[in-house]
Amino acid sequence: MAAPAKVPALLDLTIDNITPNTNRINSQCQNPRLKYLMSRLVTHLHDFARETRISTDEWMAALNFLVGCGQISSDVRHEFILLSDILGLSLLVDSINHPKPPSSTEGSVLGPFHTHDAPTLPNGSTMASDPAGVPLLCVCTVRDTAGRPVAGVKIDIWETDSSGHYDVQHSDREEPSERCVMVSDGEGRFWFKGIQPVSYPIPHDGPVGKLLERLGRHCWRPAHLHFMFAKDGWDNLITALYMRGDPYETSDAVFGVKQSLIVDLDKADAATAKEYDFTEGGLLLKHDFVLTTEEETVKLRDENAAKALAQLGLRMKLVDHLPVPELD
Amino acid sequence: MAAPAKVPALLDLTIDNITPNTNRINSQCQNPRLKYLMSRLVTHLHDFARETRISTDEWMAALNFLVGCGQISSDVRHEFILLSDILGLSLLVDSINHPKPPSSTEGSVLGPFHTHDAPTLPNGSTMASDPAGVPLLCVCTVRDTAGRPVAGVKIDIWETDSSGHYDVQHSDREEPSERCVMVSDGEGRFWFKGIQPVSYPIPHDGPVGKLLERLGRHCWRPAHLHFMFAKDGWDNLITALYMRGDPYETSDAVFGVKQSLIVDLDKADAATAKEYDFTEGGLLLKHDFVLTTEEETVKLRDENAAKALAQLGLRMKLVDHLPVPELD
Repeated sequence: MAAPAKVPALLDLTIDNITPNTNRINSQCQNPRLKYLMSRLVTHLHDFARETRISTDEWMAALNFLVGCGQISSDVRHEFILLSDILGLSLLVDSINHPKPPSSTEGSVLGPFHTHDAPTLPNGSTMASDPAGVPLLCVCTVRDTAGRPVAGVKIDIWETDSSGHYDVQHSDREEPSERCVMVSDGEGRFWFKGIQPVSYPIPHDGPVGKLLERLGRHCWRPAHLHFMFAKDGWDNLITALYMRGDPYETSDAVFGVKQSLIVDLDKADAATAKEYDFTEGGLLLKHDFVLTTEEETVKLRDENAAKALAQLGLRMKLVDHLPVPELD
Repeated sequence: MAAPAKVPALLDLTIDNITPNTNRINSQCQNPRLKYLMSRLVTHLHDFARETRISTDEWMAALNFLVGCGQISSDVRHEFILLSDILGLSLLVDSINHPKPPSSTEGSVLGPFHTHDAPTLPNGSTMASDPAGVPLLCVCTVRDTAGRPVAGVKIDIWETDSSGHYDVQHSDREEPSERCVMVSDGEGRFWFKGIQPVSYPIPHDGPVGKLLERLGRHCWRPAHLHFMFAKDGWDNLITALYMRGDPYETSDAVFGVKQSLIVDLDKADAATAKEYDFTEGGLLLKHDFVLTTEEETVKLRDENAAKALAQLGLRMKLVDHLPVPELD
């Protein structure tokens, strides 16, 4: 079976001609977006090798590192998300995809610990089962950028236990804990009882932890609570609230902290304690989240993309809101 | 435990400032080479994301692709080498690390099928056990660039069986087959009986195969025999000989073919058949390999690196023969 005639002839490839030739053979791809992604990937990968004159040993070490990341991954662990997190890529991808107008809640990194098996709980429920955790009452609202409540938003909430581990990090996990799904009520409110978040190290027993160590970086995240908001017609908001004063507030291993997401904890007064069936003087977190519509987000993302690509000197058009070369 | 004071404060990271900040926190690394590698890696990775405005779905698909590559890898399969091969990176890394003066044998890609358990066989041995293979007598020499024989070179040789599979691709493999190690004799000679190489598809039942399919590329390699030459003081030569006229001669899925490595098969005449205890008229491959010394290779590699880095406008010095920034 001969190769199709249109395949460019590949022979005697060298340091200098391997990149255009790889891109030529990949240009057989019928999907313009994938073709563009691959051509940028190949070009950056090759440029990296040429600029660093990467040695065979370094190349092999890198490939073995990647195998290690894949092999430690499982249904409840995604070492490549963690790698993306510590390289600043996750923050960047979130920023590109979820631009926020000034009046809305900023995004933060998803991290590798979101699951799809959290129970949907009614407002007021306790979502933590760790008896050693310090109880925390969270009273929140979801609004649009005009301040109007948004009802019926599905809100994923997850945090670690008091030892700094997510439920999935315990090998004897039988059911979800310190995680739940709530739905905002008619006035955009949701409230639940969790525990006070603690700082914790990201999983560092795998390849990513070893890399951080070799880089002289710590593996800690400041105390936070994760939130993910979803409702048809609204931009999916992945964010987190960070506890002010955490020692890792300005050195988050995964670059997630934003000033607008740093919160102060309060104490529940008698009226609040009574209203929410909580302990007077117990820890209270109040927060108002602001969502943007999918329409305004897509518009802003497209505008930002067009502006950024023009600044990079790239002549691109947006197809399905994603850039492909204008002339292909 | 507070973060060390020298850690740069990280807060409110954006599309525009995430790259310098990631590089700043990675600059805590005490190893200048690793620091340089990481800074180029992070910069390329982030530039890739900015140029493509990569979507969250594409990012997640890429991370899951990488997990898949890791998880299909095993002691006898390295999907990331395969990925590096089909992206042209392996060819590039080999070219950077093993520059060849015109008089010496060029390198080719290692591929993912070299093993460390091949038996060392005396000259004249049969290294293939596939009864369906067409017998091939290989009579070779190893010389230096001045034409002098090099004795005592350890030569790894491996090829597929007649069905186009390496032994490790058979799940019932009990021992090595179609692979051996030979040692050149006092006159630089080595000879063995193998089988006629056939074209074969690289493993395409995994993520790399699916990627090739999406790119509209075939997954075939032209028929070849792998060789790896090792001796203290000599540059390690990883190469292959390709059979002229193969339908994939100019479209090798892993970019390995070089004109100087394409060979013609001969027929053994009566004298040769008698000398090597082979069948008259059987297939004969004669080839003279030329090694370079480690010293001349290192010198050439350093010169090429200095020249290439200067052309890229990078101010670098070589430490242990690897580039690091001059001013760090």
